[in-house]
Amino acid sequence: MPRPPRRRPVITLLTDFGLDDPFVGIMKGVIYGINSHARVVDICHGLPSYDVHQAGFLLKMAYPFFPKGSIHVVVVDPGVGSARRPLIVWADDHYFIGPDNGVFSHLYEAVKVELVVEITASRYFLHPMSATFHGRDLFAPVAAHFSRGVALDAFGQPIADYVRLAVPRPKVQGVLLRGEVLYVDKFGNLITNITAGDLEAFRGGQEKGVVVRVGGLEIPGVSAFYAQVKEGELGALFGSSGHLEVFVHRGSAARVLKAGRGEEVWVRLA
Amino acid sequence: MPRPPRRRPVITLLTDFGLDDPFVGIMKGVIYGINSHARVVDICHGLPSYDVHQAGFLLKMAYPFFPKGSIHVVVVDPGVGSARRPLIVWADDHYFIGPDNGVFSHLYEAVKVELVVEITASRYFLHPMSATFHGRDLFAPVAAHFSRGVALDAFGQPIADYVRLAVPRPKVQGVLLRGEVLYVDKFGNLITNITAGDLEAFRGGQEKGVVVRVGGLEIPGVSAFYAQVKEGELGALFGSSGHLEVFVHRGSAARVLKAGRGEEVWVRLA
Amino acid sequence: MPRPPRRRPVITLLTDFGLDDPFVGIMKGVIYGINSHARVVDICHGLPSYDVHQAGFLLKMAYPFFPKGSIHVVVVDPGVGSARRPLIVWADDHYFIGPDNGVFSHLYEAVKVELVVEITASRYFLHPMSATFHGRDLFAPVAAHFSRGVALDAFGQPIADYVRLAVPRPKVQGVLLRGEVLYVDKFGNLITNITAGDLEAFRGGQEKGVVVRVGGLEIPGVSAFYAQVKEGELGALFGSSGHLEVFVHRGSAARVLKAGRGEEVWVRLA
Repeated sequence: MPRPPRRRPVITLLTDFGLDDPFVGIMKGVIYGINSHARVVDICHGLPSYDVHQAGFLLKMAYPFFPKGSIHVVVVDPGVGSARRPLIVWADDHYFIGPDNGVFSHLYEAVKVELVVEITASRYFLHPMSATFHGRDLFAPVAAHFSRGVALDAFGQPIADYVRLAVPRPKVQGVLLRGEVLYVDKFGNLITNITAGDLEAFRGGQEKGVVVRVGGLEIPGVSAFYAQVKEGELGALFGSSGHLEVFVHRGSAARVLKAGRGEEVWVRLA
Repeated sequence: MPRPPRRRPVITLLTDFGLDDPFVGIMKGVIYGINSHARVVDICHGLPSYDVHQAGFLLKMAYPFFPKGSIHVVVVDPGVGSARRPLIVWADDHYFIGPDNGVFSHLYEAVKVELVVEITASRYFLHPMSATFHGRDLFAPVAAHFSRGVALDAFGQPIADYVRLAVPRPKVQGVLLRGEVLYVDKFGNLITNITAGDLEAFRGGQEKGVVVRVGGLEIPGVSAFYAQVKEGELGALFGSSGHLEVFVHRGSAARVLKAGRGEEVWVRLA
Repeated sequence: MPRPPRRRPVITLLTDFGLDDPFVGIMKGVIYGINSHARVVDICHGLPSYDVHQAGFLLKMAYPFFPKGSIHVVVVDPGVGSARRPLIVWADDHYFIGPDNGVFSHLYEAVKVELVVEITASRYFLHPMSATFHGRDLFAPVAAHFSRGVALDAFGQPIADYVRLAVPRPKVQGVLLRGEVLYVDKFGNLITNITAGDLEAFRGGQEKGVVVRVGGLEIPGVSAFYAQVKEGELGALFGSSGHLEVFVHRGSAARVLKAGRGEEVWVRLA
């Protein structure tokens, strides 16, 4: 059984708790109480409440930039207290802890899963245990004990029937590659589900340029960086997550196009 | 005199500074400059400005989940620079540092206070000292020096006349237990001042179910967890802080009921 | 060549990324992966997107309260991926890392610059390197390697023609000292570009009181602290950053005066 590194282990937190309430701070208190050597890092907490899809996408975007062996705690958990199972997922030399509600679907899609363990070993939970805040009473203490060297299989049995939600993938329709916006960032960039690999496959070796169509507008070609288009103008590029992204230089594509998540984005060869 | 643990002491911060300004970061800079071994943890900073009641309630909710001996710095301090006294409160094996403006009233109500010291030892302050940012110039450096092993009584003399504001308590009125909403969290849950203990006392051993009334609506019974009611429906449960809480499953009770802090919540036996 | 202290070095982050996206967390992951001994501290991330002036002012306000030798990473970088140069600035026993787009202008104005190095040593970057997220691929890893003891001149050559934007300074006009609001904080305090030193110079030894004029209203005299004026009333004082600041006690001057950044503030002798 693999174990996280025991010297200064990294534990990340990704939740829909926001930062105005004390919930995230409380989880850190629990972790530091169990392992004073842990380094707890916030990925983000500003998700729309209960949005497992967005949480999963952001997790997939962020986790590879943390050290191998990091433990990523994801708490977007509307079913807290019900029969939904708590999981530890081992994949890509990282560990992921969270509820079995599909929040790891983007991860399952992207990398080979080594093992999924259903957490049942209640000796690692906080007691008395609430039915409404498993981030505090279950996920945080399990992550902290795991980071101290408790073996993965001490937390429960492996399972194979974990929940896997459909992840929207781009589709070829005639001369079009049809994708959609998965995420809008703080700058109003529209991040789509079309990756550089998807575009290569669609091209099939043809050297032609591409046209990106979104919100009734056409963007000729893919830029290398934002400042390649004029201030206030619309552009497209493959962003830092490897996904096609529609942007306005020094502006907000979301505002200019009045577009958000789910918006269709088409690509065709020029 | 007790002392915080000196190995990797935990110092928490709870303020009304928000996170958009650099004030919280500056406090951390001051602390790390004095004690590089400290672990500084944010509880939260998104309180309404100057709201000592809310700060006190969130502090009481959060602190027990931090390790014994933690130092909790609370800066909600509209009287900064005036004659209001700075305090270190020792209670329940934790330490609390902040202004004597009633911000610790929920704490005084909940646990036995061992000692309250008025901070006067200016050799532990930053100099020159501003009259507007004691979080930076007084509370942060005092917390950092205290975390290095300076004895509690080195900071000043014990006092007994510290400010204690009234904390709203539920009241029995005939067949009703009458409480109010103390806090609305990010999910729109309405957290009341009625605890499980209050309900037990009100019941007086009767086995009957309860009805919760809020905003003109009646909620039959208390759930064990959110998902026990249907999506979009209203429920009540005892939340992770031990307080009665009104919620909408996968929704916002605050929005559905157009209710906020101060809203009356009644409980009666069924 | 100077080096940051190698025991538990402090690396601060100041960006316009916000905290809702995972970008800040990702930068921390990169840093901790390179230097597990670093202590990463957020200064703030809530700046208006692309606002190098405000970032520079907040940096100048915050950095002196961090330990000598701290490394401050500032990423407000609309030109990311273009020819704008990445810099390490050594000044006032601190190190500053960010793009050469004027973001350090307030710093250049305030202190003696020892050395400015253009970062070119791509062996310290993440590869493959994106053209849109140099916070992750360049600034974070360079800061982390620097904090491990890599010498300053190993990152590139010194330059002298770094970008220096005009910083608005107060001006004497007849009997008036004319300044402007540089920053509005979370409490609605209007922080101006008039420092205590500017007022001393303007006074020229005269013992008279002053009148502050803003938004058509006159404020008689400068207070020592907020609570010196009545609740809801307007006042002026020299705030914790040493700048003249217009406030409303337990209220918001920005809201009361409907004033924001750029608003003129005049001072005259009484």
